[in-house]
Amino acid sequence: MPRRASDSVPDTFLAEIREQPEALRRLVDARADVEVVAEALARRGVEVVRLVAHGSSDAAASYGVYVFGLLPGWTAFRDSISLSTYYRAELDFSRSAVIALSQSGETPDVVSYLRAARERGALTVAVTNEPRSALAEAAEWTLQLHAGDERAVAATKTLLNTFAVLALLAGVAAGRGDELADALRTTADRIAAALPGLEEAVAPIATTFAYVGRMYVIGRGIEFGTAREIALKLTETCRIAAEPLTSTDLSHGPIAALDAMFPVWAIASRDECLPALVAAAALARNAGATLVATGNAAEEVPDAEFCLPVPEAPRAVLAPLLSLIPGQLFAAALARAKGLDAAQPAGLTKVTLAQ
Amino acid sequence: MPRRASDSVPDTFLAEIREQPEALRRLVDARADVEVVAEALARRGVEVVRLVAHGSSDAAASYGVYVFGLLPGWTAFRDSISLSTYYRAELDFSRSAVIALSQSGETPDVVSYLRAARERGALTVAVTNEPRSALAEAAEWTLQLHAGDERAVAATKTLLNTFAVLALLAGVAAGRGDELADALRTTADRIAAALPGLEEAVAPIATTFAYVGRMYVIGRGIEFGTAREIALKLTETCRIAAEPLTSTDLSHGPIAALDAMFPVWAIASRDECLPALVAAAALARNAGATLVATGNAAEEVPDAEFCLPVPEAPRAVLAPLLSLIPGQLFAAALARAKGLDAAQPAGLTKVTLAQ
Repeated sequence: MPRRASDSVPDTFLAEIREQPEALRRLVDARADVEVVAEALARRGVEVVRLVAHGSSDAAASYGVYVFGLLPGWTAFRDSISLSTYYRAELDFSRSAVIALSQSGETPDVVSYLRAARERGALTVAVTNEPRSALAEAAEWTLQLHAGDERAVAATKTLLNTFAVLALLAGVAAGRGDELADALRTTADRIAAALPGLEEAVAPIATTFAYVGRMYVIGRGIEFGTAREIALKLTETCRIAAEPLTSTDLSHGPIAALDAMFPVWAIASRDECLPALVAAAALARNAGATLVATGNAAEEVPDAEFCLPVPEAPRAVLAPLLSLIPGQLFAAALARAKGLDAAQPAGLTKVTLAQ
Repeated sequence: MPRRASDSVPDTFLAEIREQPEALRRLVDARADVEVVAEALARRGVEVVRLVAHGSSDAAASYGVYVFGLLPGWTAFRDSISLSTYYRAELDFSRSAVIALSQSGETPDVVSYLRAARERGALTVAVTNEPRSALAEAAEWTLQLHAGDERAVAATKTLLNTFAVLALLAGVAAGRGDELADALRTTADRIAAALPGLEEAVAPIATTFAYVGRMYVIGRGIEFGTAREIALKLTETCRIAAEPLTSTDLSHGPIAALDAMFPVWAIASRDECLPALVAAAALARNAGATLVATGNAAEEVPDAEFCLPVPEAPRAVLAPLLSLIPGQLFAAALARAKGLDAAQPAGLTKVTLAQ
C-alpha cells in the first residue's frame, strides 16, 4: 500500500502529481494544434529558437534546448529576458522563433519580452495553460497545455505537459509526429503504472532527509532540465537549498562543499551522457555525500544509498518525463514529513507577478 | 589598516585578488590581438556567438551574453556542450562563432565541443591563459588572458580578465575599441583604489557568517554572471551552498526557503535592471533573510544589514568587474574565518579534467 497522508488537509500537490498521466493524454489528443504551429515555423524558415521563461517553465526550456537540437536539429537556447525588456538591446529577431513558456500566461517580463520580439519580427509562440492570458493574447500562436485546473502553487501537471508539448513540437518539426505522439501515450501509461510503487518507495527516504538543509540535483544533457525542476520543487515545497548542476559542473567547484549532510540526487538515464553522470556521482560519493540515484539507469550508479529507478521511456528523448516523477513524489513526502504544506509554500502565489 | 591573515600560511588566493589591477592592465596592453579576432568575426559575417565553458569561465560566459548583446548587438548564448560532444546533434554552425573559455585550456569537453564546431564550419576562438593548451591548439584563433601565473585553485585574475577580454572584444566589434580600452584602464585603477577599503569592510561580515551553510547570490542582467561567479567562489572556498539566481527567479520558488540563517548577497548596479533587483531584495528581507548589498548602487537596497558599495564603473557594461571584488574578498575572509585554505579547496585541482 502506498503511504498516505494521515492528517485531514487534502494534499492537492500529491493529488495533482497523480493526475499527470491523464493530463498528458489530453495534451496528445490536441496534437493538431501542434501541427499548425510546426507548419508556421517551417513556412517562416526558422533557424533559431529562443526560449524564455522563469521558474518551472524555465526548467522545461532547458529540456527544449535538447529536443529541438536532437529532433529537427534546430539551434535553440534560453534567451536573456532582460537584454530585450530592460536594456532594449538592438537584436535581430527576423530569423528567430520565440517560444515563451508560462503556465499562468501572466509572468510580466515574459509577456514584455514576447511583445518586443514580435515587434522586431520574430515568430512568437505562447505555451500556456491559460489560452485567454496576456501571453496568449500577445503571441501570434498559442499552444495550450490542456493540463486542466491546477490548484497547488508548485506546478506538476502543467510542468509535465510543458515538457511534453516541446517534445511533440520538435517531433512534428522533424517529420516524426506520429512516433512522438505514440511514444507520449506510452509514457503516460508507464507513469501511471509506476506512480504507486514510487510513492511507496520515496516515503522512507523522506523520513531520513527531514533534517537536510541543502542538496545538489545533478543531471546531464537532456536530464539537466529535470535536475532544474526537481531542485526547484525541493526548494519551494521543502525549504531545502537544492541547486541543480550538470554532472560536469559539480566537479568545477561545488564538489568541495559536499559532506554527509549534503546529499546528491543523481538522475541517471540510459543515453550518451550516462558515463559522465556516473563519474560525477562517484566523485560525490567519495566526497562523503549521501547519494540518491534515480532515472531509468539508476542501478548503474555505484554505491548509492537510495535507488529510485523509473521505467525506460519508449524514446530516449522522453526519459525526463519519467525521471521527473520520483522528484515530485519525494518533494511531496518530504514536505509532509517536515509538516509543510507543499501546495501553499510560504511567500509564493500561483501567478508570480514579480518583474 | 586592512585586516591581515595572522597565521603563517601564505594566502595565495588573497594575494592573487590583489594582483588583479595589474593583470587587467596587461590584458588591455595586448589589445591588438583582440582587434585581429574582431576583424575575423566581421569578415565572416558572424551573426550568432556560441559561448561554451564550465565553472568560473561559464560565469564569464553569462557576462558575455550581455556585452555582445549590448555593444555590437549580436545574439550570444551559452550553448549546450553535451548536444555536440555526447549526442552529436546535427546543428548548423556555418553562421556561428564559437568562443570557448577555459583558463587552463584543458577542460576536456570544451575542447571536444570546439573541435566538433570547427569541423562543422564555425569560426572558433579560444579564450585561455595558456596559449599552448589543447584548447588554443584546437581553435582557429586564440585570445590570451595575460593574467600571469595563477596558483590558487579558485580563479581570480584569470576570471577578471575573461570578463574583460569579452567586453573588449564586444567593444572593438561595435567600433568602440578605444572607449572600452580606456574604460578598462580606469576600471583597473578603481579596483586598485577600492581594494584596501573593501578588504577591511568584509572582515566583520565574514565573522558573522561563520556558521552560514547556504546563501543566495542575486543579480539581474549584466550582473547575473557576477552572481554566478561569487556563488561559485563561496561554494568552493567556504563550503557554503551558495546558489546564483536572477532577482526574478528568486520570486519563482526559492524565496520560500529563506530565513534568518539563509542570507542573500544582492548585487545592485545602477542600470535598467536596478528596480527589479531592489524589489527582489525587499522580498528577501521580508522573508527574514539577512541582506548583504553590494555593487555601485548598494545604498539603494533598503534595510540591508551589510553594505559593501563599490565605485561606479566608467561604463555601465563594466560594472561587473568592480562588483566581483567584494565577493572575492568576502570569500577569502570567510574561508580564513572558517579555517579553510581558499587556495586549495577539498577535492579540487587547478585543471578540472572531469568529462
